[in-house]
Amino acid sequence: MTAASASPRPASGPICVLGLGLIGGSLIRALDGGDHPVFGYNRSAETVEAAVAAGHDASTDLVSTLDRAAADDALLVLATPATTIDDLLPEIAAHAPNCLLTDVISVKQAVAAAVSRHAPGLRYVGGHPMAGTSRSGWSATDPDLFRSAMWMVSTEDDTDPADWSAVAAMARSVGAFVVPAAADAHDRAVAAISHLPHLTAAATAAVGAGESDLALRLAAGSFRDGTRVAGTAPTLQRAMLEANGIALLNVLSETIDRLVAARDELREHGTVEILVDDGHRSRLAYEKIAGADPAPITGVHIGEPGWAQELRRQAHQGRVWLD
Amino acid sequence: MTAASASPRPASGPICVLGLGLIGGSLIRALDGGDHPVFGYNRSAETVEAAVAAGHDASTDLVSTLDRAAADDALLVLATPATTIDDLLPEIAAHAPNCLLTDVISVKQAVAAAVSRHAPGLRYVGGHPMAGTSRSGWSATDPDLFRSAMWMVSTEDDTDPADWSAVAAMARSVGAFVVPAAADAHDRAVAAISHLPHLTAAATAAVGAGESDLALRLAAGSFRDGTRVAGTAPTLQRAMLEANGIALLNVLSETIDRLVAARDELREHGTVEILVDDGHRSRLAYEKIAGADPAPITGVHIGEPGWAQELRRQAHQGRVWLD
Repeated sequence: MTAASASPRPASGPICVLGLGLIGGSLIRALDGGDHPVFGYNRSAETVEAAVAAGHDASTDLVSTLDRAAADDALLVLATPATTIDDLLPEIAAHAPNCLLTDVISVKQAVAAAVSRHAPGLRYVGGHPMAGTSRSGWSATDPDLFRSAMWMVSTEDDTDPADWSAVAAMARSVGAFVVPAAADAHDRAVAAISHLPHLTAAATAAVGAGESDLALRLAAGSFRDGTRVAGTAPTLQRAMLEANGIALLNVLSETIDRLVAARDELREHGTVEILVDDGHRSRLAYEKIAGADPAPITGVHIGEPGWAQELRRQAHQGRVWLD
Repeated sequence: MTAASASPRPASGPICVLGLGLIGGSLIRALDGGDHPVFGYNRSAETVEAAVAAGHDASTDLVSTLDRAAADDALLVLATPATTIDDLLPEIAAHAPNCLLTDVISVKQAVAAAVSRHAPGLRYVGGHPMAGTSRSGWSATDPDLFRSAMWMVSTEDDTDPADWSAVAAMARSVGAFVVPAAADAHDRAVAAISHLPHLTAAATAAVGAGESDLALRLAAGSFRDGTRVAGTAPTLQRAMLEANGIALLNVLSETIDRLVAARDELREHGTVEILVDDGHRSRLAYEKIAGADPAPITGVHIGEPGWAQELRRQAHQGRVWLD
């Protein structure tokens, strides 16, 4: 992204960040010092000590943090690992049942289902900032992590307009661009552009390493870049990919079909023209989108009839919410 | 490569570089100013003018360049595009039949076959520097392009020891590490670590772009890095990949098999454990090899009985020739 970030604007009220790892920790650092109070929780005393030493308001006490969020009507941001939400959601439902909840997890249908199961009365608008995840923990946090990043905000037909605006305003306040999308469309999109690349990188790495140490010795830029994400911790990769299994199955099948067609073309006609041309055209389409300032969604007033559909329609053209 | 380069040493005689694009141009720049004369040829007057303006000895006259190489007993370095060698090799055979020839093309069996076909009497020792090729032309040249890069030198049972040493010394003199390998082993290795990544990148790019503009809008680091080489000009990609078709077919088939196994595992057991674990282990193996100074090949005197086999054996363990 070379796009300039839009000017930050203050969030609309207190914010409580649950989990202070790479994403949550970067978020409390990005929000703190703004116009509105922000406080956080982390299970690990070491992380909380580091956050407090850096001047932030953080605690290892989940219940008192949630009680405070309820008293302040804070926006709750669930930023713990996906594997912890089945434990945390009942606590949130018990102690802060009237708070608005968002999250930063990389799949959206599974989280929405977990919220419905564990905390059916909770107000929930999902979110997903597209920000780096190869490092982790407080030491990796960066207050500029979200600047010019895309932050998907769940936008369903029954999403409450005020709740949506509160979550979008928080993302905007840390310099992100808001991408409105339905949970299912988001999950299909990230299967294609985030989860599938882990599997193609893994296969490429495994075939290269399986060839010989001579091959790894000769490996240069195309192998280095093309296999980078295979270096992410397997437990993190599996948690992300397996939570999006159905959408991932579809794009993996399409990938296999394309490679099989290329193999047949190469075997029978000695050429890889179709796949190489398709890939080149696709890469140029990506560079065109990623290399320019994103166009703004225009002409939508949040809450007017059909607002959610219209946001999604424009976002499917690559536009982002900048208000 | 973070490895430090070994100290350059002078080439053993005059060197004539045919083709002054990214590789040939960088080579004449890297060699010039050393102890031995270097001169070059390029078909385009514009490139030759740029080279001469930069102080190099270059000409657009192929025949006079080859005549001069023959008179000087220069080492000829064929650095023109692979598609031109069927035209150039007969000229070389006619005008410089006693010179030693090497090349920098990314496949080795096909070039060796072309030499046998067009210039059966020529002394030939193939080479392949693993240096960036995404940019092209004189303006992209860099005298440090080969510093700490791997430079494969063809090492067959019937390779002449003095000829091998001359080619290896030239690669060493520009700061490269020499990787001895047989042509067929080289072609299998680069199919796996250089050519296959183009196809997996192309498939990943095409599936991502085919999903939606929303998907491309959400694309972040894993897609950006994983599809980078798909942006290379399709004609360059096809020339490289299709010249290595048989080896590429084998690694492509293995890749398809691994992805099909992952699809079955995901569909039937909800997990991608095997592929993600294999990919992670393979990436770590690559990082271990790429991140450290390469170990030297030891205990081999070029020309002693079995020298070529022993060089290849140690290179298959990831070792490089540093003498």
